[in-house]
Amino acid sequence: MGRFIKGGTVEMYNSPSVKAFAAAVGKKEGDGPLAKHFDYIGEDITFGAGSHGKDSWEKAESVLQQKALSLALRKGDLGENDIDIIFAGDLLNQCVASGYAARDYEIPFIGLYGACSTMAESLALAAVFIENGLGGNAAAMTSSHYCTAERQFRFPVNYGSHRTPTSQWTATAAGCAIVTPRMPESPPPYIYSVTFGRVKDYGIKDANNMGAAMAGAAYATISTHLTNTGKTIDDFDYIVTGDLGLVGSEVMYDLFDKDRINIKKKHKDCGLMLYDLETQDVHAGGSGCGCGAGVLCGYFMREISAGKLKNILFTATGALMSPTILQQGESIPGIAHAIHIGNG
Amino acid sequence: MGRFIKGGTVEMYNSPSVKAFAAAVGKKEGDGPLAKHFDYIGEDITFGAGSHGKDSWEKAESVLQQKALSLALRKGDLGENDIDIIFAGDLLNQCVASGYAARDYEIPFIGLYGACSTMAESLALAAVFIENGLGGNAAAMTSSHYCTAERQFRFPVNYGSHRTPTSQWTATAAGCAIVTPRMPESPPPYIYSVTFGRVKDYGIKDANNMGAAMAGAAYATISTHLTNTGKTIDDFDYIVTGDLGLVGSEVMYDLFDKDRINIKKKHKDCGLMLYDLETQDVHAGGSGCGCGAGVLCGYFMREISAGKLKNILFTATGALMSPTILQQGESIPGIAHAIHIGNG
Repeated sequence: MGRFIKGGTVEMYNSPSVKAFAAAVGKKEGDGPLAKHFDYIGEDITFGAGSHGKDSWEKAESVLQQKALSLALRKGDLGENDIDIIFAGDLLNQCVASGYAARDYEIPFIGLYGACSTMAESLALAAVFIENGLGGNAAAMTSSHYCTAERQFRFPVNYGSHRTPTSQWTATAAGCAIVTPRMPESPPPYIYSVTFGRVKDYGIKDANNMGAAMAGAAYATISTHLTNTGKTIDDFDYIVTGDLGLVGSEVMYDLFDKDRINIKKKHKDCGLMLYDLETQDVHAGGSGCGCGAGVLCGYFMREISAGKLKNILFTATGALMSPTILQQGESIPGIAHAIHIGNG
Repeated sequence: MGRFIKGGTVEMYNSPSVKAFAAAVGKKEGDGPLAKHFDYIGEDITFGAGSHGKDSWEKAESVLQQKALSLALRKGDLGENDIDIIFAGDLLNQCVASGYAARDYEIPFIGLYGACSTMAESLALAAVFIENGLGGNAAAMTSSHYCTAERQFRFPVNYGSHRTPTSQWTATAAGCAIVTPRMPESPPPYIYSVTFGRVKDYGIKDANNMGAAMAGAAYATISTHLTNTGKTIDDFDYIVTGDLGLVGSEVMYDLFDKDRINIKKKHKDCGLMLYDLETQDVHAGGSGCGCGAGVLCGYFMREISAGKLKNILFTATGALMSPTILQQGESIPGIAHAIHIGNG
């Protein structure tokens, strides 16, 4: 059933189990500090162009998302037919990475758009469905690809444009988590509660400063989640954000400082974990749906499974603008969805 | 609770009530045969440019979607604070019509991408949430706009390009439905069951023949819904599709003919109802998220409320391609979600 609390929170009574999870990433991500946590590291960013005839970056991104799903299925000892529903989305126009990935499966599909919040949005909806008995296994997945995102949102990478100091590096990565009802023998991770966020706009207009645009949404959703569930940041090992990066994280700290909450001591940002900021030239950190998805379904889920972490509040944030609407002078609204994941 | 049936169907035990609904449309749609059923008809397609400072078509589309929401709120005697969650999406890149519409409300927001299936996708999810006690009022809404869609998917209207005979006219329209738990005194419409569809690709590559690309998805989802619920087309006054248009409807009839089901006798397509095909120069009919949304939240919901219709299976279909991926030679996958709405 779950209990709905005004403000968008659902507290689960049965805390659904994440039966399987997988992260598939590109070469650059596989050269980063989390390399050993990924289930698949591609040798190049085409993921089989030639051998599979996937001759565009968009198709490569679909292949990467399929890779994450197929790896999660294998790890969970599941077949395609065991999955009752897929929740997925991505950054591309008309979410084609997800739509074309799902085309190859006979599985009911719920397409989402939450920009870089999609891993949290999809996993929260999967948990809600499973909590309420709506299916035996629900898959939540998303992806991003450096080359598809750059040419769509900024400049084609072939142009060799200079990147600004506040810019973030869109991760070439995909994550998939399969949620199932919790039984006495179900291993962790478990999902205890989720909060669906509101669209928040703090007036940022710089498409090269997405972290700042999303920080307010992270602040709003984390605050709501804590209030609604009666928890504090000390109930968690980490408050994890998706891809605020260096700039956005500082903005979020400032917002919490006003509430006299020192969130910095508990904070981890997937965008600051995926790459080595000293050597990998990603400027303000990683970003993209795949950033939070890859770090959650690679690193954090494993750490929770292994008992090394007990509780995290995973809060992926998304920037909801399009290039067209930025050209019209609009500011960038953000959104964040939060999920309490743990092993208790 | 609801009962989940393999294949994506949720049967509701409590059949949530559509407490309020509204349709807001543009001038051309207001000149069509359904004019008297709409709650708002704009005088031009800018919906207040100048007076509201909404100086782009994208912003105009957001205003139209807000119009549908605010009208539904007023008709339901509800305030913004009564809505616990919004499910919304649209056709635009990064779903900006919905994201920017939701920015002005302090309501948790779940962003969707289902192309022209979005009214069914959003309404089905809203019904699932309400059926399971997750909120007191959930809003489902979507929109499309002729000028935003044409320039994004085909050519800017200013070019004056010729349209092909199979092309459809993207509706400038928005619809909003507010779903609430059914009480003994709750008036219809009620939602009895929903089926979330799979992504189906029949190999169509022509962006000017979207109806044909979506027909297979409609066939698949309607067939699954009937099988899973043990119903036949004779249990419904109408099987309603979103925007198959002239060409797509014929393709769907052919597919059902092979199963010896004469669906034509029960079929209504919103794309063939919104305009007068003889005089309004829309070629194969209307299309766009707003087409199904406007006709559902304008015409069909009213007819069900008034007792003139008892049962419909509303099946909105979406084409999930992007212009980029079509240029890469890909075919167009479709999806359809179905909702059984009635007054019994």
